[in-house]
Amino acid sequence: MDYLESLGVRAKRASEVLAHLDPASKNLGLRAAADALQKNTAEIIAANSIDVQNAREKGLKESLIDRLMLTKERIEGMAKGIIEVSELKDPIGEIVENFIRPNGLQIDRITVPMGVVGIIYEARPNVTADAFALCFKSGNACILRGGSDAINSNKAIVSCIRSALEAEKLPDDVLLIVTDTSRETAKSFMKMNQYVDLLFPRGGAGLIQSVVENATVPVIETGVGNCHIYVDESADVDMAVDIIDNAKTQRFGVCNAAESLVIHRGIAKEVIPAIYKRLASKNVEMLGAEDVREIEAEISPCTEEDYAREYLGPFISVKIVDNIDHAIEHINYYSTKHSEAIITENKENAEKFLDEIDSACVYWNASTRFTDGYEFGFGSEIGISTQKLHARGPMGLRALTSYKYQIRGTGQCRQ
Amino acid sequence: MDYLESLGVRAKRASEVLAHLDPASKNLGLRAAADALQKNTAEIIAANSIDVQNAREKGLKESLIDRLMLTKERIEGMAKGIIEVSELKDPIGEIVENFIRPNGLQIDRITVPMGVVGIIYEARPNVTADAFALCFKSGNACILRGGSDAINSNKAIVSCIRSALEAEKLPDDVLLIVTDTSRETAKSFMKMNQYVDLLFPRGGAGLIQSVVENATVPVIETGVGNCHIYVDESADVDMAVDIIDNAKTQRFGVCNAAESLVIHRGIAKEVIPAIYKRLASKNVEMLGAEDVREIEAEISPCTEEDYAREYLGPFISVKIVDNIDHAIEHINYYSTKHSEAIITENKENAEKFLDEIDSACVYWNASTRFTDGYEFGFGSEIGISTQKLHARGPMGLRALTSYKYQIRGTGQCRQ
Repeated sequence: MDYLESLGVRAKRASEVLAHLDPASKNLGLRAAADALQKNTAEIIAANSIDVQNAREKGLKESLIDRLMLTKERIEGMAKGIIEVSELKDPIGEIVENFIRPNGLQIDRITVPMGVVGIIYEARPNVTADAFALCFKSGNACILRGGSDAINSNKAIVSCIRSALEAEKLPDDVLLIVTDTSRETAKSFMKMNQYVDLLFPRGGAGLIQSVVENATVPVIETGVGNCHIYVDESADVDMAVDIIDNAKTQRFGVCNAAESLVIHRGIAKEVIPAIYKRLASKNVEMLGAEDVREIEAEISPCTEEDYAREYLGPFISVKIVDNIDHAIEHINYYSTKHSEAIITENKENAEKFLDEIDSACVYWNASTRFTDGYEFGFGSEIGISTQKLHARGPMGLRALTSYKYQIRGTGQCRQ
Repeated sequence: MDYLESLGVRAKRASEVLAHLDPASKNLGLRAAADALQKNTAEIIAANSIDVQNAREKGLKESLIDRLMLTKERIEGMAKGIIEVSELKDPIGEIVENFIRPNGLQIDRITVPMGVVGIIYEARPNVTADAFALCFKSGNACILRGGSDAINSNKAIVSCIRSALEAEKLPDDVLLIVTDTSRETAKSFMKMNQYVDLLFPRGGAGLIQSVVENATVPVIETGVGNCHIYVDESADVDMAVDIIDNAKTQRFGVCNAAESLVIHRGIAKEVIPAIYKRLASKNVEMLGAEDVREIEAEISPCTEEDYAREYLGPFISVKIVDNIDHAIEHINYYSTKHSEAIITENKENAEKFLDEIDSACVYWNASTRFTDGYEFGFGSEIGISTQKLHARGPMGLRALTSYKYQIRGTGQCRQ
């Protein structure tokens, strides 16, 4: 049996125990894990500092090193996140539907864990603890394959949580890590259909694309967001400027940040200068076609490709449209189906937009930045799905469950 | 633009119209399609007879030719199936969840179509009409890639339905067929992520395996069923024999037929001869290990591989176990997670089995043959899922829907 297969066998076995643990035992495990992270802060930081030093020597960007680095506060944050998950409602064993057939068969549809969840991610050690907590609470074993740049941090976190589970006589193989971080092993991991029920790629567009192309295990695509804000003719201009500012500048590197503006021609002369003024004050560069630049000459020229770009930085494209149909068509063409918003005082147009925009989250008079598990009240999230199968938008515990039918009879045979 | 891509573009455009059609217009389209099938019975049978003749010349098995052949009654059955789907509750636009956040955001989760559904199947022309009806009712365009042996039948059915839709001024591109039945085109079809939201393979294990391995579009695995029946120590022997007889012999070639028996040692001497007698009278061959053959010498020897086999024919394996835990372990190891049943008068054992067996449908004192969209009251089915992502067990209209979040605000920005 090879290395990956042995991980698969161990995870599968542990998942069978975990699937039938009562909620109290699962919460006990989560609290023990949170506790252990705090008690082992020094060891985890020591392991992390090796990763940080290696990253510096490799010349990694400071923004990536910032994501990689763990501090006492960050480890406390990870522990607090685990405790929060322990306080959520247990998602397993809920009868979501039940009915009795004319022949007397009583059919219950009941939530169950997925089984073994695989997660492939980049050098963000906080994902290690987050993913464990959500998987464990939902009765799933997980096999994590984090980026090689965080391998020492991930090993330390995983080892600490596994010891805590073992001390509570809980199956420690519910949390396993792929320590061989080669690309070949990652590719084999994506094809472990016998052992892995579901795979989440978390990271940049390149990582996600590679998983979608190579995986045979069912995948949920997450994350890429070319989010649009459409300013309708009847928009409240101050509200539009505030929402655009928030959606663009509150954080640049996130998938729910606005990357594209669409403006009704009837309000363009009023709203574009106001938006320009606000965004320029925050060093955001706007890109627009000729008709946009005629209104505000300081705006940069824009190509077709710019409409499709997820900038993740201080840039935003601007498109002027003649009516709401044109706006909807433009957005459905260029969007990544993540989050889009309309700013309008016209209820009819708002409802049309909410209905016809084909994205996971569609907003009326609110910032796209709310597309987030915490903001939706899910407590935490395993990612934001941009596909339609199984789960869409922010994925909380429910996205980590499946269901089964339990059918009770009295000897029924099919006619 | 190549051939497949042009199909993708057309289906995508049509799906955008269909997604927002009201229920009455969709039902009008379905009734028109059913009507047209009946009116064009002669043309469809003429096209089908070419396929049947070609199949005979190729030496196809009679059982396959029987599946391929269309008669007046079978076309009436197809039309009736479409009418039945039109009478089901519309699955789109339902608010399945709604909540208001502390900041005043009002969040509705509402059902929406998947978009474009791809179906890859073998030479069963009735699937063409069934799949269209379920996809259309749930607001999805579909692109069908049926087996080359049924190409003339499929073309005739599709052309007839498309004309009926067009006459009602409905978008006929909601139903498209891949007329190039080469394997290369099938493989390209499985990678059309830009245009196809979901892919269903319907057919034998080889077809399904090929789709799982080659597709980059999200896939739902359907169909393979190594279904087990466990006869517990406290079973009612007559009930056990009747259920096993029904599950094994009512139809051999179906995925919900029983293929494996598991018998508690404490009841083996009583129940195995009774089962043998009944099944032998119907020419079913039983296969068992030494301890089984000691009880009934006429039973054939059995290898490990026989426990894993989906016979789809008059064979069934038999395993004796010492207790229910051993039974559950054996079944979870060999099953394809489709349907399993326990026969027992012991409620505690029944509940344990219902809880611990990891299959889509788990029965207590009933035949596995009930795993079926019609029998579950779903009206019809697009297939039976054996994976855990998105849908499990019989898939009706709900399995063809996704959801989106509509969020209504009053200018909220994220803090």
